Amino acid sequence: MFDKSVYESRRQRLAERMGSGMILILGNYEAPANYLANTYKFRQDSSFLYFFGINRPGLAGVIDVDNGRECIYGDDPDLDDIIWSGPQVSLQEMAERVGVKHTATFAALAGALQNDFGNNRVHFLPPYRSRNILMLEDLLGLNPAWASAYSSVKLIRAVVALRSVKEPREIEEIRLACNIGREMHVRAMQEARPGVKEQRVAGLLEGIAASRGSMVSFPVILSQNGETLHNHDHSQVLTEGRLMLTDAGAETEMCYCSDFTRTVPVGGKFSSRQRDVYSIVLACNRKAMELARPGATYKWVHEETCKVLARGLKELGLMKGDAEEAVAAGAHALFMPHGLGHMMGLDVHDMESLGQEFVGYDEETRPSGQFGLSSLRMGRRLEEGFVVTDEPGCYFIPALIDRWREKRMHEEFLVYDRIESFKDFGGIRVEDDLLITRDGAVYLGDERVPSTIEEIEETMRG
Amino acid sequence: MFDKSVYESRRQRLAERMGSGMILILGNYEAPANYLANTYKFRQDSSFLYFFGINRPGLAGVIDVDNGRECIYGDDPDLDDIIWSGPQVSLQEMAERVGVKHTATFAALAGALQNDFGNNRVHFLPPYRSRNILMLEDLLGLNPAWASAYSSVKLIRAVVALRSVKEPREIEEIRLACNIGREMHVRAMQEARPGVKEQRVAGLLEGIAASRGSMVSFPVILSQNGETLHNHDHSQVLTEGRLMLTDAGAETEMCYCSDFTRTVPVGGKFSSRQRDVYSIVLACNRKAMELARPGATYKWVHEETCKVLARGLKELGLMKGDAEEAVAAGAHALFMPHGLGHMMGLDVHDMESLGQEFVGYDEETRPSGQFGLSSLRMGRRLEEGFVVTDEPGCYFIPALIDRWREKRMHEEFLVYDRIESFKDFGGIRVEDDLLITRDGAVYLGDERVPSTIEEIEETMRG
Repeated sequence: MFDKSVYESRRQRLAERMGSGMILILGNYEAPANYLANTYKFRQDSSFLYFFGINRPGLAGVIDVDNGRECIYGDDPDLDDIIWSGPQVSLQEMAERVGVKHTATFAALAGALQNDFGNNRVHFLPPYRSRNILMLEDLLGLNPAWASAYSSVKLIRAVVALRSVKEPREIEEIRLACNIGREMHVRAMQEARPGVKEQRVAGLLEGIAASRGSMVSFPVILSQNGETLHNHDHSQVLTEGRLMLTDAGAETEMCYCSDFTRTVPVGGKFSSRQRDVYSIVLACNRKAMELARPGATYKWVHEETCKVLARGLKELGLMKGDAEEAVAAGAHALFMPHGLGHMMGLDVHDMESLGQEFVGYDEETRPSGQFGLSSLRMGRRLEEGFVVTDEPGCYFIPALIDRWREKRMHEEFLVYDRIESFKDFGGIRVEDDLLITRDGAVYLGDERVPSTIEEIEETMRG
Repeated sequence: MFDKSVYESRRQRLAERMGSGMILILGNYEAPANYLANTYKFRQDSSFLYFFGINRPGLAGVIDVDNGRECIYGDDPDLDDIIWSGPQVSLQEMAERVGVKHTATFAALAGALQNDFGNNRVHFLPPYRSRNILMLEDLLGLNPAWASAYSSVKLIRAVVALRSVKEPREIEEIRLACNIGREMHVRAMQEARPGVKEQRVAGLLEGIAASRGSMVSFPVILSQNGETLHNHDHSQVLTEGRLMLTDAGAETEMCYCSDFTRTVPVGGKFSSRQRDVYSIVLACNRKAMELARPGATYKWVHEETCKVLARGLKELGLMKGDAEEAVAAGAHALFMPHGLGHMMGLDVHDMESLGQEFVGYDEETRPSGQFGLSSLRMGRRLEEGFVVTDEPGCYFIPALIDRWREKRMHEEFLVYDRIESFKDFGGIRVEDDLLITRDGAVYLGDERVPSTIEEIEETMRG
């Protein structure tokens, strides 16, 4: 937990942006796996953590802007809870640690809100957990199907404005998360030997993240079928000569995230064809880092990066024609059907629950409907203090290639006969986390995860 | 997945027990952590797994008993899903693998049920995930607060009758889970060195479980404050001379569980006082194994075990008077405020979501309201093929000791002055998994987790 002045200041700035009304920030509850008492590791809601800091289930924070009154609602443990779960700091004391004067039982929350909801004064964020949708139904009488529709765009905009720009203390936490992420990826490289099960390696990475105090920032993606973008199937045995794509990161105890991807050759040596494609993707990753700076839109950085990809694939004989035109038409998206990156912070896709149109776009930069570009989560102008991922990739997805070829998509830019011969290639992605500085961008983490062909082969030998 | 005849036979027997009506078994959905797409590891509902076997989110199984028709409702992936998550076997083919002829989209489920629900013919199990409570509200118009109350006691009884007796193939899966659990506990013993963080060890155990294909069967309990029964706080540094209690198990890929507890001395040598208490708890564990057999109630085994505890504590001067009377009065529960064990299978607390009164008790053996005994999850007569945990413990819980002393509870059996001197002791629990055989019980797993003082000290040296 940061010093209480941090949370006081954040709530103060939030209240100022809102001007009036009641702000309701619901924390998360325990999430049951296979019965009520068997829960997953508790993950607090990120906006609750940002404004109220307490990493404990079953709380709600309310800021009554008009009356300048803040209150945290929740229930203290009884003797039975102490026997089973140990002594706990009281809610009142926890509230004091984050600068909130008032606390009340959870049962009191409905009464505190009901009156004001009738007057359209209650602002809440879109719920993403069913437990909180039920809570809103109970508290405010909302139809579950419409709970998100009743959330407050004004509050969303205010929260996004604050959370987008990372404070130095947050950047420090993200740096720690990146260091854990680096340890995970180095270990994955060292374990990527022929005959080892993918699941074995993926599990070890989870263990490292858990050992460091929290958990993975998202389910580990680790597969020799790297062409599947979010591949959580780890059922294969690692085979000499294939590529292993690992997309994984960790959270710190304070829930700040890291997110890296590396693609390495099982057995430790890139083949000639793998080196060719890898070099292009790594050049894309570097290009994005070089172009990212305050004032540039990330959509532009994405497009420039895609041009590097298209030029490289043209050199390999997989694309043809003018690279700029190919990118404008979206032909390169056969190979990279996703966006360059997303915001990162307390969520690995930062603030995703608030809606990508508010987090990654604005009045100036609008989301695109074009295949590939439509998956770009972050498009708007960068500012100092933003943290974004830089994750270009190049994939050969048999089902997509077949579909496009059948429909004769972008034939003027795609050399389908040659592409066919890459159907067994898999996919490559190289991802780092960027901090936008005053005049550019830097890779986050004390030491970069091995990234060049030489560094990776050396790490795998070690 | 087992052979399809296994699932066909289970559903057949379930239908016979029910006689008529529509049986609805809801599978689980993905559970979001901090936004909708960032999910915890998927855990299928255990009853769905038992009858329909498919380990995939977003399904529901229906058995129309009167018409002998079975159908699985769910949605097939589209091209976008294939790009992001990989090619998947179709629902129709998955259904065939578990012997179900019909499939339909999830949207068709409401129509299939609505008609029959009005006629009180739809039977469902108590929901424990909010997502499924919302689903029942949507499908059947149930008030969320009352969803469990509308669940079918007849269906609960039928499912409990089937799932309680483990098939040989299930016992084999549990044996595999026990072997992973053993590996976790041996590793914990080896890592329990002074100066190491508890979190470090707990995380490694999670990693072992994940590496073997699934996950921990419940959140790892690992603490030097073993007197807190379910202690998930791992924030301390291991200190020479203290006890470390580890309660942890794993699930196999098919979601069968193991559950072991061991308590070991940080640094590798039990002190004299620790040996005294440890020996009593180990004797309790053995006593339960010796007494457990078909026809005996587990409540009786619990009580006999508690007498061993009381006699031992009397020898140590912590209790006084007649041990049998002390146990009948519940005085020993100051030291062991929980039950001897619970059923185990597809859930680590098997079928807990169906209600403990149906799983652990029956018309003959009723739940008790006495402190301690009221926490016994399994009381009824054992049968061949049951799997139960055998987990006696002895704890010194300062808050409970203070409360009881203040209220002068059981003064005729408790030597409070001497108990006070154990307030810094912590707690000890020794837990194994028992298979009830034709004429007794055996410890499950190829090799028992080190349990004697000598075995533990030797493992910690290694």
